[in-house]
Amino acid sequence: MKFEPTEHPHRRYNALTGDWILVSPHRTKRPWQGKQETPTPEQRPSYDPTCYLCPGNTRAGGHANPDYESTFVFTNDFAALLEDTPEHGPEQQHPLMRVQPEQGTCRVICFSPRHDLTLPEMAVEDIRKVIDVWAQQTVELGQKYRWVQVFENKGAIMGCSNPHPHGQIWTGSVLPNEPTKEELRQKAYFEETGNVLLEDYLKLEVQSGERIVLENAHWIVLTPYWALWPFETLLLPRRHVLRLPDLTNEERDSLAEIMQRFLSKYDNLFQVSFPYSMGWHGAPTDDGDYAHWQLHAHYYPPLLRSATIKKFMVGYEMLAEAQRDITPEQAADRLRSLSAIHYKQQR
Amino acid sequence: MKFEPTEHPHRRYNALTGDWILVSPHRTKRPWQGKQETPTPEQRPSYDPTCYLCPGNTRAGGHANPDYESTFVFTNDFAALLEDTPEHGPEQQHPLMRVQPEQGTCRVICFSPRHDLTLPEMAVEDIRKVIDVWAQQTVELGQKYRWVQVFENKGAIMGCSNPHPHGQIWTGSVLPNEPTKEELRQKAYFEETGNVLLEDYLKLEVQSGERIVLENAHWIVLTPYWALWPFETLLLPRRHVLRLPDLTNEERDSLAEIMQRFLSKYDNLFQVSFPYSMGWHGAPTDDGDYAHWQLHAHYYPPLLRSATIKKFMVGYEMLAEAQRDITPEQAADRLRSLSAIHYKQQR
Ligand SMILES: O=P(O)(O)O[C@H]1O[C@H](CO)[C@@H](O)[C@H](O)[C@H]1O
Ligand SMILES: O=P(O)(O)O[C@H]1O[C@H](CO)[C@@H](O)[C@H](O)[C@H]1O
Repeated sequence: MKFEPTEHPHRRYNALTGDWILVSPHRTKRPWQGKQETPTPEQRPSYDPTCYLCPGNTRAGGHANPDYESTFVFTNDFAALLEDTPEHGPEQQHPLMRVQPEQGTCRVICFSPRHDLTLPEMAVEDIRKVIDVWAQQTVELGQKYRWVQVFENKGAIMGCSNPHPHGQIWTGSVLPNEPTKEELRQKAYFEETGNVLLEDYLKLEVQSGERIVLENAHWIVLTPYWALWPFETLLLPRRHVLRLPDLTNEERDSLAEIMQRFLSKYDNLFQVSFPYSMGWHGAPTDDGDYAHWQLHAHYYPPLLRSATIKKFMVGYEMLAEAQRDITPEQAADRLRSLSAIHYKQQR
Repeated sequence: MKFEPTEHPHRRYNALTGDWILVSPHRTKRPWQGKQETPTPEQRPSYDPTCYLCPGNTRAGGHANPDYESTFVFTNDFAALLEDTPEHGPEQQHPLMRVQPEQGTCRVICFSPRHDLTLPEMAVEDIRKVIDVWAQQTVELGQKYRWVQVFENKGAIMGCSNPHPHGQIWTGSVLPNEPTKEELRQKAYFEETGNVLLEDYLKLEVQSGERIVLENAHWIVLTPYWALWPFETLLLPRRHVLRLPDLTNEERDSLAEIMQRFLSKYDNLFQVSFPYSMGWHGAPTDDGDYAHWQLHAHYYPPLLRSATIKKFMVGYEMLAEAQRDITPEQAADRLRSLSAIHYKQQR
């Protein structure tokens, strides 16, 4: 019997992290009798007096938001990381109970004063302003912290507690788990081949084309070969870029443009504001040599079959290994075939 | 300033996997305005004619269940792993696109014919029968497969599609990600110290006592030092045991007894059938030397503050590192203080 990746269960290797994932391409016909999600209601006012992110409103912590007109950044009132934490942990530690105090901060970025919008519904010029804030914040926070994690939780099922369009930045003094894995793999690849892992990978993807979702002059969106979430994507610059602040003016405009089109495809997939967690991974912000790094964004959306049926990463996934049903190639196919004009604009 | 693990954000090291987790002990007062879960309705009939796991009923795949009286095992009609997959993948593989065909099987274990029960509501003798099935299945499947993953997804929010009490077993020919990490860490520790990692760890925990939830003659339940989920626990035998089938008669009875008490505490926490994913990790089932392994079960429950508010492992967690609010010590304290008699029995 010849192995067919479209038919036979197999494992794929995530070359960026070193993890494996189990792919069950034959399993798409499984009936679903389990939990159904309630999609977030789509009709929202452009200003909500009870929203703690709308301009002029008072937040849970007691602070009032300014009457901001584009983006607005503030320190999270209930930050998971704090600036003034002691530097040193206990000197005597058993190797089985190791602890490190951690210094950092958590900021919230409002993407727009408009309560009723999401990124793909915003004008390209306004998405561009968000990109500039991401870059500025990375510069500012990168001076003090080694890791600046820019991310967005979108949708109630991704733990987002407020539908007002916003993202977050959490920073820390050490490399967290995921970036550590990417640092290791990218560095090892560079040492072995003299090439940048994600540059070589992008070449392979461009040659094959089967996982490419969308591209423009400076950016490519694809479903990675090792994608774990059903419609997971990787957003990559064509040029070798270490960090968000290194993007040129043109690359930023182009990024805003591709984000609008590609996030519209996401929303068009199930005709619903598509939930996801996304985040940027760029080189660590200390003065080490990170020539082996390539800037990229991961999009991890949980929906599997419809606006109400998601993929659960539970028992087997938590205890053994992540598992997916549809292949990344099938997912790319679906996403490619969709219009890049947001369904609300098509009405 | 002196570092206080009950006050200052810190990272803890998971000595079993090598991962780190971020602990934010000061963050418990964060208000929650986000998604609320709908608890699974608790009133179920003891037999449901539409349930595909109840005795005598016909399953989605067209097969009829026997009129079983205690436990019942069958092969999943929509298995993620299949027995007859080709052995070899493509010979030419780019190092950035590696793939392996995978052979395995997926079985479902009905814990009881009664549709309306869950493990802690079952008699200790009936829980014991489930343990025996876990052990038998591990022997049988372990002859063919290197990894036998026994697990349970409990509750709709853990992707469980049917409330009939049941668990699963997925097997495979290679060690998946999570067991690979545990194999590496346990082996390295054994080579360095000559001791079994989890035996040394248990000694430390017994000495300190602050994370112990429950114990009996043969078993201990504790919130691990590196716990990631709010009320995560680790169930450990007192004796050095490699795999489920190695448990003595007495140890199995004792396991059934502690499971009933400890799962009752879980249900009592928020007076709701407590959702979780759990699974057993024992030594791989090939004939290698695994003296460094210690059998254990992980319980990963998602609820954080109430029956309707769970912890979301999303943006920062997916992109950077797992994060928790209450400390494992606080969680152990809460669990310890609860009755071990199920709230339904107390009425
Ligand atoms: O096999 P089930 O119970 O239908 O499926 C459930 O458990 C599996 C194993 O953890 C997961 O892959 C599925 O996403 C989940 O819905
Ligand atoms: O800060 P938020 O949006 O209230 O919180 C959300 O994102 C955080 C970062 O991914 C998570 O730790 C929380 O569990 C989630 O609810």
